[in-house]
Amino acid sequence: MIPCKIPGRSIGVFNATLHVFSIGVRLLSYRARIALALKGIQYEPVNVVGGRGSDDLKKQEYLDLNPSAVVPTLVDGDSVLTQSIPIMEYLEETYPETPILPADAAGRARVRAIAQVMVSDTHPLRTARVVEFIYETLGLEKEDLDQWLKHWNERGFGAVEWMLADGRIPGDFCHGNEPTMANICLVAQIFVAEKFGADLSGLANVNRIHGTCMAHPAFRDTAPGKQPDNPDHQK
Amino acid sequence: MIPCKIPGRSIGVFNATLHVFSIGVRLLSYRARIALALKGIQYEPVNVVGGRGSDDLKKQEYLDLNPSAVVPTLVDGDSVLTQSIPIMEYLEETYPETPILPADAAGRARVRAIAQVMVSDTHPLRTARVVEFIYETLGLEKEDLDQWLKHWNERGFGAVEWMLADGRIPGDFCHGNEPTMANICLVAQIFVAEKFGADLSGLANVNRIHGTCMAHPAFRDTAPGKQPDNPDHQK
Repeated sequence: MIPCKIPGRSIGVFNATLHVFSIGVRLLSYRARIALALKGIQYEPVNVVGGRGSDDLKKQEYLDLNPSAVVPTLVDGDSVLTQSIPIMEYLEETYPETPILPADAAGRARVRAIAQVMVSDTHPLRTARVVEFIYETLGLEKEDLDQWLKHWNERGFGAVEWMLADGRIPGDFCHGNEPTMANICLVAQIFVAEKFGADLSGLANVNRIHGTCMAHPAFRDTAPGKQPDNPDHQK
Repeated sequence: MIPCKIPGRSIGVFNATLHVFSIGVRLLSYRARIALALKGIQYEPVNVVGGRGSDDLKKQEYLDLNPSAVVPTLVDGDSVLTQSIPIMEYLEETYPETPILPADAAGRARVRAIAQVMVSDTHPLRTARVVEFIYETLGLEKEDLDQWLKHWNERGFGAVEWMLADGRIPGDFCHGNEPTMANICLVAQIFVAEKFGADLSGLANVNRIHGTCMAHPAFRDTAPGKQPDNPDHQK
């Protein structure tokens, strides 16, 4: 909660580094970080080492803020915000410069729908807590997990590929020539999928737009591998 | 797509009745229906019988609109909108009367976060497609599925109970004394949980607010059991 000083505000983004036991993936609050970077908002990142057996003193402080123990949490003065999409909507409303949603209602709905396919239809099925439950409680094997992840990745990214390929809104990004919330959610999800070895090679529009995003510093410099607490994921 | 006539618009909400093989739950686009009802928007419901082996002629028409085959889809003139949260945000922007989000940014973030815990952290783990995959592809038994559903229900509704119990925003609904997007997502999720026999009895705030909602015609009259194509779920 040690906030930075920017005019009238103090914003901290709590990140957790989740240890997924034998798989070794580390996750950070990538979506929130990209949104903050796109808008040029200064903030203080607070990294909390999570996972079982963690004795990080910040862990309890984090759980007091957000007992669901998921990330990110954004603290803005007295407001404690959780969940990536609401945090991005909040940043859009309170820092409207450099918008991450289009101006028209139908366009905003399209961008939000692409984001939601990633955030609701794809990501929840491969979070650390779900992987852990599949392994430890249901007692499934790695090949079952691989099949599980492959299936939901194909389904989720396949839906986004279709939404991008519909030709209605051409451009370098998901919706025209400026990055939006759709790009943020797409890039964060590709990062996760690639960590699990997903094959996304057949998705022409997804890959084209991912390339455009990763050439943009707001996406590139906020990547989990670039974070100082994550030395083993430099890429 | 046979739209109703309201001034300047034509809105259809496509619903799919998903047959979850041996479980027998039917889902409809409850969240979109509640939002439309709260705002008093007239629309034409289009029910598409989905599931394997369906020969409903509307099924292909639906897949042409939304190849991901999830519901709901809302058609407003030339705009085809998918995903419940973007549809609700769109209705809020285009029909601002009877708002389903608070006026302040922090309040909006809180309402959206409660909604997202239901929509992203809870619902995706118990959709028909996930249940089907657990049964048919992973070959798990009913007791595994029961354990799976119980775990994610407890986690999701437990998080919402905590968010409602924090005492910051008292009221009859999730955020003060008017229903919001948070109530819509909570009520729809409770409907699903109860169909699977979830025990939510320990959640005082969730149950109190659910009771308030179900006394409100916009929640009560749009319930899946009240829909004409769903005669076996009258409740």
